[in-house]
Amino acid sequence: MNNLEQRLQTLEDRQTLQDTLTAYLVAIDAMSSIDDILKCLTEDAEYDMSAINYPCFKGSAAVREFFSSVFNNMSHQAHYATNFHIDHITANTASCRSHVIGKAITKDADEICIYLQYLLEFKRGDDGWKICSIYSKPLLPL
Amino acid sequence: MNNLEQRLQTLEDRQTLQDTLTAYLVAIDAMSSIDDILKCLTEDAEYDMSAINYPCFKGSAAVREFFSSVFNNMSHQAHYATNFHIDHITANTASCRSHVIGKAITKDADEICIYLQYLLEFKRGDDGWKICSIYSKPLLPL
Amino acid sequence: MNNLEQRLQTLEDRQTLQDTLTAYLVAIDAMSSIDDILKCLTEDAEYDMSAINYPCFKGSAAVREFFSSVFNNMSHQAHYATNFHIDHITANTASCRSHVIGKAITKDADEICIYLQYLLEFKRGDDGWKICSIYSKPLLPL
Repeated sequence: MNNLEQRLQTLEDRQTLQDTLTAYLVAIDAMSSIDDILKCLTEDAEYDMSAINYPCFKGSAAVREFFSSVFNNMSHQAHYATNFHIDHITANTASCRSHVIGKAITKDADEICIYLQYLLEFKRGDDGWKICSIYSKPLLPL
Repeated sequence: MNNLEQRLQTLEDRQTLQDTLTAYLVAIDAMSSIDDILKCLTEDAEYDMSAINYPCFKGSAAVREFFSSVFNNMSHQAHYATNFHIDHITANTASCRSHVIGKAITKDADEICIYLQYLLEFKRGDDGWKICSIYSKPLLPL
Repeated sequence: MNNLEQRLQTLEDRQTLQDTLTAYLVAIDAMSSIDDILKCLTEDAEYDMSAINYPCFKGSAAVREFFSSVFNNMSHQAHYATNFHIDHITANTASCRSHVIGKAITKDADEICIYLQYLLEFKRGDDGWKICSIYSKPLLPL
Protein backbone atom coordinates (compact mmCIF):
# COMPACT_ATOMS: atom_id res chain seq x y z
CA MET A 1 0.00 0.00 0.00
CA ASN A 2 1.54 3.33 -1.01
CA ASN A 3 1.41 6.49 1.02
CA LEU A 4 -1.63 8.01 -0.74
CA GLU A 5 -3.57 4.80 -0.34
CA GLN A 6 -2.68 4.63 3.35
CA ARG A 7 -3.94 8.17 3.89
CA LEU A 8 -7.14 7.37 1.99
CA GLN A 9 -7.62 4.23 4.10
CA THR A 10 -7.27 6.32 7.27
CA LEU A 11 -10.07 8.63 6.13
CA GLU A 12 -12.24 5.70 5.04
CA ASP A 13 -11.76 3.90 8.36
CA ARG A 14 -12.71 6.99 10.29
CA GLN A 15 -15.82 7.50 8.16
CA THR A 16 -16.82 3.85 8.53
CA LEU A 17 -16.44 3.89 12.31
CA GLN A 18 -18.70 6.92 12.60
CA ASP A 19 -21.16 5.51 10.04
CA THR A 20 -21.41 2.29 12.05
CA LEU A 21 -22.39 4.21 15.17
CA THR A 22 -24.88 6.24 13.13
CA ALA A 23 -26.43 3.11 11.58
CA TYR A 24 -26.76 1.67 15.09
CA LEU A 25 -28.56 4.77 16.39
CA VAL A 26 -30.78 5.04 13.32
CA ALA A 27 -31.78 1.41 13.91
CA ILE A 28 -32.53 1.77 17.62
CA ASP A 29 -34.63 4.88 16.96
CA ALA A 30 -36.53 3.28 14.05
CA MET A 31 -37.64 0.58 16.51
CA SER A 32 -38.56 -1.68 13.60
CA SER A 33 -35.74 -4.24 13.22
CA ILE A 34 -33.44 -5.74 15.81
CA ASP A 35 -31.50 -7.32 12.93
CA ASP A 36 -30.57 -3.80 11.77
CA ILE A 37 -29.12 -3.21 15.24
CA LEU A 38 -27.25 -6.53 15.30
CA LYS A 39 -25.63 -5.78 11.91
CA CYS A 40 -23.65 -3.00 13.63
CA LEU A 41 -22.36 -5.23 16.44
CA THR A 42 -19.97 -8.15 16.81
CA GLU A 43 -21.54 -11.45 17.93
CA ASP A 44 -19.95 -11.04 21.37
CA ALA A 45 -20.66 -7.32 21.78
CA GLU A 46 -20.74 -6.10 25.37
CA TYR A 47 -23.02 -3.45 26.84
CA ASP A 48 -22.31 -1.76 30.13
CA MET A 49 -25.09 0.63 31.03
CA SER A 50 -24.62 0.21 34.79
CA ALA A 51 -23.69 3.89 35.23
CA ILE A 52 -27.11 4.92 33.91
CA ASN A 53 -29.10 2.32 35.85
CA TYR A 54 -29.59 -0.03 32.92
CA PRO A 55 -28.22 -3.58 32.69
CA CYS A 56 -24.88 -5.02 31.58
CA PHE A 57 -25.03 -7.87 29.09
CA LYS A 58 -23.06 -9.58 26.35
CA GLY A 59 -23.69 -11.35 23.05
CA SER A 60 -26.27 -11.24 20.28
CA ALA A 61 -28.95 -13.21 22.14
CA ALA A 62 -28.79 -10.83 25.10
CA VAL A 63 -28.80 -7.79 22.78
CA ARG A 64 -31.88 -9.17 21.04
CA GLU A 65 -33.65 -9.75 24.35
CA PHE A 66 -32.78 -6.25 25.60
CA PHE A 67 -34.04 -4.44 22.50
CA SER A 68 -37.19 -6.60 22.36
CA SER A 69 -37.93 -5.27 25.80
CA VAL A 70 -37.04 -1.69 24.81
CA PHE A 71 -39.26 -1.84 21.71
CA ASN A 72 -42.09 -3.24 23.87
CA ASN A 73 -41.80 -0.57 26.54
CA MET A 74 -40.99 2.56 24.54
CA SER A 75 -43.29 4.43 22.20
CA HIS A 76 -40.59 6.73 20.78
CA GLN A 77 -36.81 7.07 20.86
CA ALA A 78 -34.39 9.69 19.53
CA HIS A 79 -30.63 9.49 20.05
CA TYR A 80 -28.48 12.37 18.80
CA ALA A 81 -24.73 11.61 18.55
CA THR A 82 -22.11 14.36 18.22
CA ASN A 83 -18.40 14.88 19.02
CA PHE A 84 -17.28 11.57 17.48
CA HIS A 85 -13.66 11.13 18.54
CA ILE A 86 -11.09 8.41 17.88
CA ASP A 87 -8.88 7.85 20.94
CA HIS A 88 -6.79 5.04 19.47
CA ILE A 89 -6.85 3.05 16.26
CA THR A 90 -4.88 0.09 14.89
CA ALA A 91 -5.39 -1.94 11.72
CA ASN A 92 -8.25 -3.94 13.25
CA THR A 93 -9.28 -2.27 16.51
CA ALA A 94 -10.43 1.20 17.48
CA SER A 95 -11.36 2.99 20.71
CA CYS A 96 -13.73 5.89 20.14
CA ARG A 97 -16.14 8.05 22.06
CA SER A 98 -19.19 10.09 21.17
CA HIS A 99 -21.45 12.45 23.07
CA VAL A 100 -25.09 11.33 22.85
CA ILE A 101 -28.36 13.00 23.81
CA GLY A 102 -30.90 10.25 24.42
CA LYS A 103 -34.60 11.08 24.48
CA ALA A 104 -37.41 8.56 24.85
CA ILE A 105 -41.09 8.33 25.67
CA THR A 106 -42.35 5.19 27.38
CA LYS A 107 -45.70 3.62 26.53
CA ASP A 108 -46.84 4.99 29.91
CA ALA A 109 -45.93 8.47 28.59
CA ASP A 110 -42.95 8.96 30.88
CA GLU A 111 -40.24 11.13 29.36
CA ILE A 112 -36.59 10.12 29.51
CA CYS A 113 -33.77 12.52 28.66
CA ILE A 114 -30.15 11.56 29.27
CA TYR A 115 -26.88 13.33 28.42
CA LEU A 116 -24.20 10.71 27.80
CA GLN A 117 -20.86 9.90 26.37
CA TYR A 118 -20.55 6.47 24.77
CA LEU A 119 -17.13 4.85 25.13
CA LEU A 120 -16.96 2.52 22.14
CA GLU A 121 -14.68 -0.32 21.12
CA PHE A 122 -14.69 -1.47 17.49
CA LYS A 123 -13.20 -4.53 15.78
CA ARG A 124 -12.61 -5.07 12.08
CA GLY A 125 -13.45 -8.57 10.89
CA ASP A 126 -14.23 -10.14 7.52
CA ASP A 127 -17.38 -8.05 7.22
CA GLY A 128 -15.81 -4.76 8.20
CA TRP A 129 -15.85 -2.60 11.32
CA LYS A 130 -18.36 -3.46 14.04
CA ILE A 131 -18.96 -2.24 17.58
CA CYS A 132 -17.76 -4.77 20.17
CA SER A 133 -18.32 -2.73 23.34
CA ILE A 134 -20.49 0.19 24.44
CA TYR A 135 -20.09 1.81 27.83
CA SER A 136 -22.62 4.55 28.62
CA LYS A 137 -21.15 7.29 30.80
CA PRO A 138 -23.50 10.00 32.06
CA LEU A 139 -22.21 13.53 31.43
CA LEU A 140 -24.98 15.12 33.49
CA PRO A 141 -26.71 13.66 36.56
CA LEU A 142 -29.60 11.35 35.62
CA MET B 1 -11.10 6.96 -13.18
CA ASN B 2 -8.76 4.62 -11.32
CA ASN B 3 -9.56 2.84 -8.08
CA LEU B 4 -7.93 5.40 -5.77
CA GLU B 5 -9.70 8.25 -7.48
CA GLN B 6 -13.03 6.42 -7.20
CA ARG B 7 -12.51 5.93 -3.46
CA LEU B 8 -11.57 9.59 -3.07
CA GLN B 9 -14.68 10.62 -5.01
CA THR B 10 -16.83 8.51 -2.67
CA LEU B 11 -15.46 10.35 0.36
CA GLU B 12 -15.82 13.74 -1.34
CA ASP B 13 -19.43 13.03 -2.32
CA ARG B 14 -20.29 12.02 1.20
CA GLN B 15 -18.68 15.16 2.61
CA THR B 16 -20.44 17.37 0.08
CA LEU B 17 -23.86 15.85 0.82
CA GLN B 18 -23.45 16.50 4.53
CA ASP B 19 -21.99 19.97 3.92
CA THR B 20 -24.99 20.87 1.76
CA LEU B 21 -27.37 19.98 4.59
CA THR B 22 -25.19 21.95 7.02
CA ALA B 23 -25.12 25.01 4.75
CA TYR B 24 -28.92 24.80 4.49
CA LEU B 25 -29.34 24.72 8.29
CA VAL B 26 -26.77 27.47 8.85
CA ALA B 27 -28.75 29.61 6.39
CA ILE B 28 -32.18 28.96 7.90
CA ASP B 29 -30.84 29.75 11.40
CA ALA B 30 -29.02 32.91 10.25
CA MET B 31 -32.42 34.21 9.06
CA SER B 32 -30.68 36.80 6.91
CA SER B 33 -30.74 35.50 3.32
CA ILE B 34 -33.28 33.32 1.54
CA ASP B 35 -30.83 33.16 -1.39
CA ASP B 36 -28.39 31.29 0.87
CA ILE B 37 -31.15 28.74 1.50
CA LEU B 38 -32.03 28.45 -2.19
CA LYS B 39 -28.37 27.79 -3.10
CA CYS B 40 -28.66 24.43 -1.30
CA LEU B 41 -31.83 23.35 -3.14
CA THR B 42 -32.77 22.33 -6.66
CA GLU B 43 -35.20 24.67 -8.47
CA ASP B 44 -37.97 22.09 -8.08
CA ALA B 45 -37.19 21.08 -4.49
CA GLU B 46 -40.09 19.55 -2.57
CA TYR B 47 -40.91 20.01 1.11
CA ASP B 48 -43.23 17.71 2.96
CA MET B 49 -43.70 18.89 6.54
CA SER B 50 -47.24 17.50 6.82
CA ALA B 51 -46.21 15.09 9.60
CA ILE B 52 -45.20 18.03 11.80
CA ASN B 53 -48.24 20.21 10.98
CA TYR B 54 -46.42 22.46 8.55
CA PRO B 55 -47.21 22.77 4.84
CA CYS B 56 -46.13 20.80 1.76
CA PHE B 57 -44.84 22.84 -1.16
CA LYS B 58 -42.58 22.67 -4.19
CA GLY B 59 -40.27 24.93 -6.16
CA SER B 60 -38.10 27.97 -5.49
CA ALA B 61 -40.94 30.49 -5.46
CA ALA B 62 -42.82 28.49 -2.81
CA VAL B 63 -39.62 28.00 -0.77
CA ARG B 64 -39.01 31.75 -0.88
CA GLU B 65 -42.56 32.48 0.24
CA PHE B 66 -42.37 29.95 3.08
CA PHE B 67 -39.09 31.26 4.49
CA SER B 68 -40.23 34.89 4.12
CA SER B 69 -43.07 33.95 6.41
CA VAL B 70 -40.76 32.05 8.80
CA PHE B 71 -38.32 34.97 8.99
CA ASN B 72 -41.28 37.32 9.65
CA ASN B 73 -42.76 35.18 12.41
CA MET B 74 -39.70 33.85 14.21
CA SER B 75 -37.28 35.81 16.34
CA HIS B 76 -34.71 32.98 16.69
CA GLN B 77 -34.04 29.54 15.19
CA ALA B 78 -31.50 26.81 15.96
CA HIS B 79 -31.43 23.49 14.11
CA TYR B 80 -28.91 20.86 15.25
CA ALA B 81 -28.31 18.00 12.75
CA THR B 82 -26.63 14.75 13.77
CA ASN B 83 -26.56 11.11 12.63
CA PHE B 84 -26.10 11.92 8.93
CA HIS B 85 -26.62 8.64 7.10
CA ILE B 86 -26.53 7.72 3.40
CA ASP B 87 -29.18 5.09 2.61
CA HIS B 88 -28.46 4.88 -1.12
CA ILE B 89 -26.20 6.70 -3.54
CA THR B 90 -25.64 6.59 -7.30
CA ALA B 91 -23.50 8.81 -9.52
CA ASN B 92 -26.08 11.63 -9.51
CA THR B 93 -28.68 10.85 -6.84
CA ALA B 94 -28.56 10.14 -3.12
CA SER B 95 -31.07 9.25 -0.40
CA CYS B 96 -29.93 10.32 3.04
CA ARG B 97 -31.34 10.96 6.47
CA SER B 98 -30.35 13.04 9.44
CA HIS B 99 -31.65 13.46 12.97
CA VAL B 100 -32.46 17.11 13.70
CA ILE B 101 -33.31 18.98 16.89
CA GLY B 102 -35.26 22.08 15.91
CA LYS B 103 -35.63 24.93 18.39
CA ALA B 104 -37.31 28.25 17.67
CA ILE B 105 -38.77 31.28 19.41
CA THR B 106 -41.63 33.09 17.74
CA LYS B 107 -41.94 36.88 17.81
CA ASP B 108 -44.79 36.27 20.28
CA ALA B 109 -42.21 34.51 22.51
CA ASP B 110 -43.67 31.03 22.03
CA GLU B 111 -41.05 28.29 22.24
CA ILE B 112 -40.93 25.50 19.68
CA CYS B 113 -38.85 22.35 20.19
CA ILE B 114 -39.13 19.43 17.78
CA TYR B 115 -37.20 16.17 17.54
CA LEU B 116 -37.08 15.09 13.90
CA GLN B 117 -35.48 12.97 11.30
CA TYR B 118 -35.14 14.56 7.87
CA LEU B 119 -35.48 12.15 4.95
CA LEU B 120 -33.50 13.83 2.19
CA GLU B 121 -33.15 13.33 -1.54
CA PHE B 122 -30.21 14.90 -3.35
CA LYS B 123 -29.44 15.34 -7.05
CA ARG B 124 -26.12 16.19 -8.66
CA GLY B 125 -26.39 18.69 -11.51
CA ASP B 126 -23.96 21.02 -13.27
CA ASP B 127 -23.47 23.02 -10.06
CA GLY B 128 -22.97 20.03 -7.78
CA TRP B 129 -25.10 18.24 -5.21
CA LYS B 130 -28.32 19.93 -4.11
CA ILE B 131 -31.26 18.87 -1.96
CA CYS B 132 -34.34 18.05 -4.07
CA SER B 133 -36.65 16.75 -1.34
CA ILE B 134 -37.01 17.11 2.44
CA TYR B 135 -39.51 15.08 4.41
CA SER B 136 -39.70 15.93 8.11
CA LYS B 137 -40.51 12.89 10.24
CA PRO B 138 -41.14 13.46 13.96
CA LEU B 139 -39.11 11.12 16.20
CA LEU B 140 -40.92 12.25 19.34
CA PRO B 141 -44.56 13.38 19.64
CA LEU B 142 -44.97 17.10 18.84
CA MET C 1 1.60 17.83 -5.03
CA ASN C 2 -0.52 16.18 -7.71
CA ASN C 3 -4.25 16.59 -8.09
CA LEU C 4 -5.22 13.43 -6.16
CA GLU C 5 -2.96 14.37 -3.29
CA GLN C 6 -4.42 17.88 -3.20
CA ARG C 7 -7.95 16.48 -3.00
CA LEU C 8 -6.88 14.09 -0.25
CA GLN C 9 -5.26 16.96 1.65
CA THR C 10 -8.50 18.94 1.43
CA LEU C 11 -10.43 16.08 3.04
CA GLU C 12 -7.74 15.57 5.69
CA ASP C 13 -7.68 19.27 6.58
CA ARG C 14 -11.43 19.35 6.95
CA GLN C 15 -11.38 16.26 9.17
CA THR C 16 -8.55 17.68 11.29
CA LEU C 17 -10.34 21.00 11.81
CA GLN C 18 -13.48 19.25 13.03
CA ASP C 19 -11.45 16.80 15.15
CA THR C 20 -9.66 19.69 16.83
CA LEU C 21 -12.96 21.23 17.86
CA THR C 22 -14.16 17.82 19.07
CA ALA C 23 -10.99 17.23 21.10
CA TYR C 24 -11.46 20.67 22.66
CA LEU C 25 -15.06 19.90 23.67
CA VAL C 26 -14.20 16.41 24.93
CA ALA C 27 -11.51 18.02 27.12
CA ILE C 28 -13.72 20.77 28.55
CA ASP C 29 -16.43 18.23 29.39
CA ALA C 30 -13.98 15.75 30.95
CA MET C 31 -13.01 18.53 33.40
CA SER C 32 -9.81 16.66 34.26
CA SER C 33 -6.96 18.34 32.34
CA ILE C 34 -6.51 21.95 31.29
CA ASP C 35 -3.45 20.81 29.31
CA ASP C 36 -5.79 18.74 27.09
CA ILE C 37 -7.71 21.95 26.39
CA LEU C 38 -4.55 23.97 25.69
CA LYS C 39 -3.33 21.36 23.18
CA CYS C 40 -6.20 22.38 20.90
CA LEU C 41 -5.41 26.11 21.04
CA THR C 42 -2.67 28.41 19.81
CA GLU C 43 -0.61 30.15 22.53
CA ASP C 44 -2.32 33.44 21.74
CA ALA C 45 -5.86 32.06 21.35
CA GLU C 46 -8.64 34.59 21.90
CA TYR C 47 -12.00 33.98 23.52
CA ASP C 48 -14.91 36.35 23.10
CA MET C 49 -17.88 35.21 25.16
CA SER C 50 -19.21 38.72 25.72
CA ALA C 51 -22.44 37.94 23.84
CA ILE C 52 -23.28 35.21 26.37
CA ASN C 53 -22.30 37.21 29.46
CA TYR C 54 -18.95 35.50 29.94
CA PRO C 55 -15.54 37.21 29.72
CA CYS C 56 -13.22 37.98 26.81
CA PHE C 57 -9.59 36.96 27.25
CA LYS C 58 -6.48 36.01 25.31
CA GLY C 59 -3.49 33.71 25.69
CA SER C 60 -2.68 30.41 27.39
CA ALA C 61 -2.33 31.85 30.90
CA ALA C 62 -5.77 33.47 30.70
CA VAL C 63 -7.28 30.28 29.24
CA ARG C 64 -5.79 28.28 32.10
CA GLU C 65 -7.16 30.71 34.67
CA PHE C 66 -10.62 30.69 33.10
CA PHE C 67 -10.93 26.89 32.99
CA SER C 68 -9.51 26.54 36.52
CA SER C 69 -12.43 28.67 37.61
CA VAL C 70 -14.90 26.69 35.46
CA PHE C 71 -13.66 23.36 36.83
CA ASN C 72 -13.95 24.77 40.36
CA ASN C 73 -17.47 26.07 39.91
CA MET C 74 -19.09 23.39 37.75
CA SER C 75 -19.98 19.87 38.75
CA HIS C 76 -20.85 18.69 35.21
CA GLN C 77 -20.54 19.92 31.64
CA ALA C 78 -21.77 18.57 28.29
CA HIS C 79 -21.22 20.41 25.00
CA TYR C 80 -22.74 18.95 21.83
CA ALA C 81 -21.34 20.33 18.55
CA THR C 82 -23.13 19.85 15.22
CA ASN C 83 -23.33 21.59 11.82
CA PHE C 84 -19.57 22.01 11.43
CA HIS C 85 -19.11 24.35 8.48
CA ILE C 86 -15.99 25.78 6.79
CA ASP C 87 -16.61 29.35 5.63
CA HIS C 88 -13.14 29.97 4.23
CA ILE C 89 -9.90 28.02 4.14
CA THR C 90 -6.37 28.74 2.90
CA ALA C 91 -3.17 26.67 3.26
CA ASN C 92 -2.66 27.77 6.88
CA THR C 93 -5.82 29.52 8.07
CA ALA C 94 -9.49 28.55 8.29
CA SER C 95 -12.71 30.25 9.35
CA CYS C 96 -15.34 27.78 10.53
CA ARG C 97 -18.52 27.70 12.53
CA SER C 98 -20.37 25.08 14.52
CA HIS C 99 -23.69 24.95 16.32
CA VAL C 100 -23.22 23.96 19.96
CA ILE C 101 -25.67 22.97 22.71
CA GLY C 102 -24.00 23.72 26.04
CA LYS C 103 -25.37 22.15 29.21
CA ALA C 104 -23.83 22.50 32.66
CA ILE C 105 -24.63 22.02 36.32
CA THR C 106 -22.93 24.29 38.84
CA LYS C 107 -21.75 23.03 42.23
CA ASP C 108 -24.72 24.96 43.64
CA ALA C 109 -26.95 22.74 41.43
CA ASP C 110 -27.96 25.53 39.06
CA GLU C 111 -28.66 24.31 35.54
CA ILE C 112 -27.26 26.11 32.51
CA CYS C 113 -28.44 25.41 28.98
CA ILE C 114 -27.31 27.57 26.06
CA TYR C 115 -27.88 27.27 22.33
CA LEU C 116 -24.89 28.70 20.51
CA GLN C 117 -22.96 28.98 17.33
CA TYR C 118 -19.19 29.11 17.73
CA LEU C 119 -17.38 31.26 15.16
CA LEU C 120 -13.92 29.72 15.00
CA GLU C 121 -10.59 30.77 13.54
CA PHE C 122 -7.88 28.15 13.05
CA LYS C 123 -4.20 28.45 12.22
CA ARG C 124 -1.85 25.74 10.98
CA GLY C 125 1.61 25.83 12.55
CA ASP C 126 4.43 23.33 12.97
CA ASP C 127 2.27 21.13 15.16
CA GLY C 128 -0.81 21.21 12.93
CA TRP C 129 -4.16 22.96 13.04
CA LYS C 130 -5.13 24.73 16.26
CA ILE C 131 -7.96 27.06 17.25
CA CYS C 132 -6.82 30.68 17.52
CA SER C 133 -10.18 32.35 18.14
CA ILE C 134 -13.59 31.37 19.51
CA TYR C 135 -16.54 33.73 19.44
CA SER C 136 -19.70 32.41 21.11
CA LYS C 137 -22.84 33.69 19.42
CA PRO C 138 -26.18 32.86 21.06
CA LEU C 139 -28.72 31.35 18.64
CA LEU C 140 -31.53 31.50 21.18
CA PRO C 141 -32.03 34.10 23.95
CA LEU C 142 -30.07 33.22 27.10
